[in-house]
Formats: sequence, C-alpha cells, structure tokens
Amino acid sequence: MRAQAEHWRRDGLRIAVVPTMGSLHEGHLTLLRAARAAADLVVLTIFVNPTQFGPSEDLARYPRDEAGDLRKALPTGIDCAFCPDAASMYPPGAQTFVTVRELELPLCGQSRPGHFAGVATVVSKLFHLTRPHVAFFGEKDFQQLAVIRRMVRDLDFGIEIRGVAIVREPDGLAMSSRNAYLSAEERVQALALSRGLAAAAAAFAAGERAAEKLLAAALAPIAAAPLSRIDYVELRDAEELSPVEQVTRPVVLAMAVWVGKTRLLDNRVLRP
Amino acid sequence: MRAQAEHWRRDGLRIAVVPTMGSLHEGHLTLLRAARAAADLVVLTIFVNPTQFGPSEDLARYPRDEAGDLRKALPTGIDCAFCPDAASMYPPGAQTFVTVRELELPLCGQSRPGHFAGVATVVSKLFHLTRPHVAFFGEKDFQQLAVIRRMVRDLDFGIEIRGVAIVREPDGLAMSSRNAYLSAEERVQALALSRGLAAAAAAFAAGERAAEKLLAAALAPIAAAPLSRIDYVELRDAEELSPVEQVTRPVVLAMAVWVGKTRLLDNRVLRP
Repeated sequence: MRAQAEHWRRDGLRIAVVPTMGSLHEGHLTLLRAARAAADLVVLTIFVNPTQFGPSEDLARYPRDEAGDLRKALPTGIDCAFCPDAASMYPPGAQTFVTVRELELPLCGQSRPGHFAGVATVVSKLFHLTRPHVAFFGEKDFQQLAVIRRMVRDLDFGIEIRGVAIVREPDGLAMSSRNAYLSAEERVQALALSRGLAAAAAAFAAGERAAEKLLAAALAPIAAAPLSRIDYVELRDAEELSPVEQVTRPVVLAMAVWVGKTRLLDNRVLRP
Repeated sequence: MRAQAEHWRRDGLRIAVVPTMGSLHEGHLTLLRAARAAADLVVLTIFVNPTQFGPSEDLARYPRDEAGDLRKALPTGIDCAFCPDAASMYPPGAQTFVTVRELELPLCGQSRPGHFAGVATVVSKLFHLTRPHVAFFGEKDFQQLAVIRRMVRDLDFGIEIRGVAIVREPDGLAMSSRNAYLSAEERVQALALSRGLAAAAAAFAAGERAAEKLLAAALAPIAAAPLSRIDYVELRDAEELSPVEQVTRPVVLAMAVWVGKTRLLDNRVLRP
C-alpha cells in the first residue's frame, strides 16, 4: 500500500483516504463521494481496529461484510480498498501508541478509556501507509474528529482533515453500523437522541444560550424512552471540548446513550 | 520544510535526515558523512527538544551554538539545516505524544520518566516535516535508537533507521555534547565508563557469558572513580532490552553514570 501511495505521489497525484471499520452505510458513502470530488485517487480503508475496543466491548460481534462493503463502495468511484488484517497491523512486539492527552479524556473517553489512543494510533498507521493529502471523517464521531485534527496538527502530519456532516435516516436517526444491533422496539426509542438534539437546537434558535436549559431540552425525550440509559449528554466547546456554561462560541451538544445493549452517539454543533 | 521535502520527493530524490540537539561534535559529523553517502539530500535538524528534558534536568544550560554547528556541518556537504524554535514546534494546546510503552521503561527510562515519549514525539514530528527515506542516529544513545526503530516499525513510517557506531576521544571517552560540562578531574575519571566496557568486552572475548561476571568486570573501574555515581549498569537483550542472565544472543552492556554533576552514557554490544 505504501509503495503504491509513494508511486502516486511521485506522479503528482492527489490522494484522499477514507478510513472506516467497514459495514458501510450511506454515511460512509457520503464520505467516499466527498473524497472522490477532492482528489485524483480515493483510498477506502476497512479495518476493525482491535486497539480501540475495550475488553468488554463489541469487537467480536462488530458487523463485518467486506464483499458487501466493496459492492457498495465501488459505484462511488474508489481507486483502492485497503483491508489489512489485525496480525499484519499489530505484529508481535507492537507497543507504540499515539495519545492526544487532553482531548481524549472527556465524553467517550470517560466510559472508553484507551479508545482514542487506539484510534489515534491506527489512524497514524493508516496515514503512513496510504500517504494521503486529504482525509475524510464523519462528524457523528465528533470527539474522534477533534482528536484526529489535533493529532495531525501536533505531529505535523501535513494532511488536510475534512469533517462531513452526519447522515441521518429519514426519521432522524444518525446512521451507524451499530444501528444493526437494535430490535424493532429499540429502533423506535433510539429516535430520542435526534429528537433531543432537535429540541435543544430549537431552543438555541429561539435565543437560549444557557447550557443548563439547552441540556434540559435535549434530555426530555431521552428521559421519556424507557429502554434508554444515558452515558453522557454534554455541551462542550466545539474545538477544545472544554465544558461550557453559556454559549458564546461554537459548541457541540454531544451525547452517548445506551438503547438496550447498543450504545449510540449523536451530536449537533450550535453556532451563535 | 515539509513543502521543500515534498518537492524533493516528487523529483524522485532520496532524503536523509540527521536529527540532533546541536552542539555538534565528531560523532554528529560522522552521522552527517554517513547520510551524505546514502542520499541525494542531507537534512540536518537542530532542536533542543524541551519535552525530553525532566523538570530538574539541564534544558536551560544545554550547550547551544547554532553558528558554530553550521560551520562544522557545512563541510560534510549538508543540503539543508532545519532549526525550528520551541514555540513553533509546540504551539499552545499541543498535547499529542508518541509512546513506545515497553522499550521506554528500563535503563534511562527509570531515572528519566517521560524522556522517551518526548524523543519519540519530536522525532515523529521531524520525520513528518523532513519526509526522509533514511535517518541516522548514534549508537551511543542505544535505548533511543531501539525506541525509534520500534516506533518506525509499529507506526509504519516506512523510513530506514541506521545506527552509527559510537565515536570516541583518543583516550576512549564516548563523544557527547555533555562532556563540555566536565571539570579536568571529572574528565579523567569519566574514563571509568569506557574502561569498564573494555574490561567486560575482554572477559566476553575470553569466553565469559554470565551477566553477573561481565557486569562485575564493567563495574570495577567505576567503583575506583570516587567522583562517579552509578545510575545503572546493565546487560540487556540488544533488541528487546529485556534483562539477560546468560548471553546467548546479541546483548548490550549499557550504563549511565554520574561524574560530578554530569550524567554520561556509554554502551557496548556483545555478540556471541
């Protein structure tokens, strides 16, 4: 992969990469189409990265369908799919990790210690292997995007990072490979996340700037969904992820909510 | 720097980098000459990296002489000297670190916690900025070389790392920028390190394979130097840096010894 990417670069071609864990949905395809419009060569990577899963998490049952993924991705015009296996990505003795010390602590970092070190490490490796000029990530994983942006800046990767807006089902549910885990009843109650965000956004549009009030608006639909259990619902500075009391700069209302045994993420950026 | 390096790479030119903290001596010049022979373009980097110094260490008084360094380096045929300042290398909010979790723990890691994370981080940055095909490091900083080799392998940097043998003063003292700290009396007693290594190497050549005996041979000259104080003298596997009782594979006899207020390193690889 690296030799091919070096070859492309020597030919003066612009490379875009879209790192994924496979199980592609319309959100991923939107990233691939954005990449297609931005570069000469589009590299899709598919790798279910074990180092970003905790010991009690869903690594073993994470949905995998490489043939189906390629069938979906090819019509977007990808030039290359890079699908390494775990043994070649982490040979015996592998022990180097990239950590973004502060941005990885709050939000998902609270319940998933080590998750973002796993993400930053594998994205570093994928960047070195695919040598992109530009890389695309979904805004649904908002903290991941913030971590990667900071890592790229701090380590002088020289890669442009582009976030792409969340793609939603017609009823508002943010697309996620993990939506496949939901039962019919859970699928209905999972709408509480996007409805909470919509309620907070409506309050914000009406002039509300107090975090407490915006969060209360977001929490009401979730409290009304008996199969839901909150991991976090927080208002944070959109860049530094620091806590916010009163909105004076762009913020993100970010949430992780369990619906049954499935942990779902959603967020919405509010710009004053 | 990165734009220039990218330009060279697109022209198909091979780049060698020699990362240093300046205060160049014959050891560094040997690295530069090896780089000159191995590439189209030689980049010398000079950066006294604050993140690899502990709070009570010699960052402030570390010898700096950029003009003198360039005067010494130019005759070796360098093409570029990259001398960033700390504010541009670590802007506000910088928080990303590269750690090599196991190799950074023993030896110097014991008395310098965080040192190798600082080294791995700044070398990652310098690699991204200078885009080398090959990089040269001195074997005097043996653990540093092991850490960087592992980091490059684990993170798929795709850069060839070459270690260059220790360059010594005529009397055997390993060259180091910190030798400048030594008083006349300390300078004499500093020979205990290389003499200890020579004694151990002689025992090894005579067939001795027991760590205990080899270490005893190395320790005798140091014990006889009253201004010296041992940080560590250890026999370790040359690649994994794991402890060794009996030599069956290449090992490194590595030592850090204070002579007065100056901490000196030296080592010798023993190959059965």
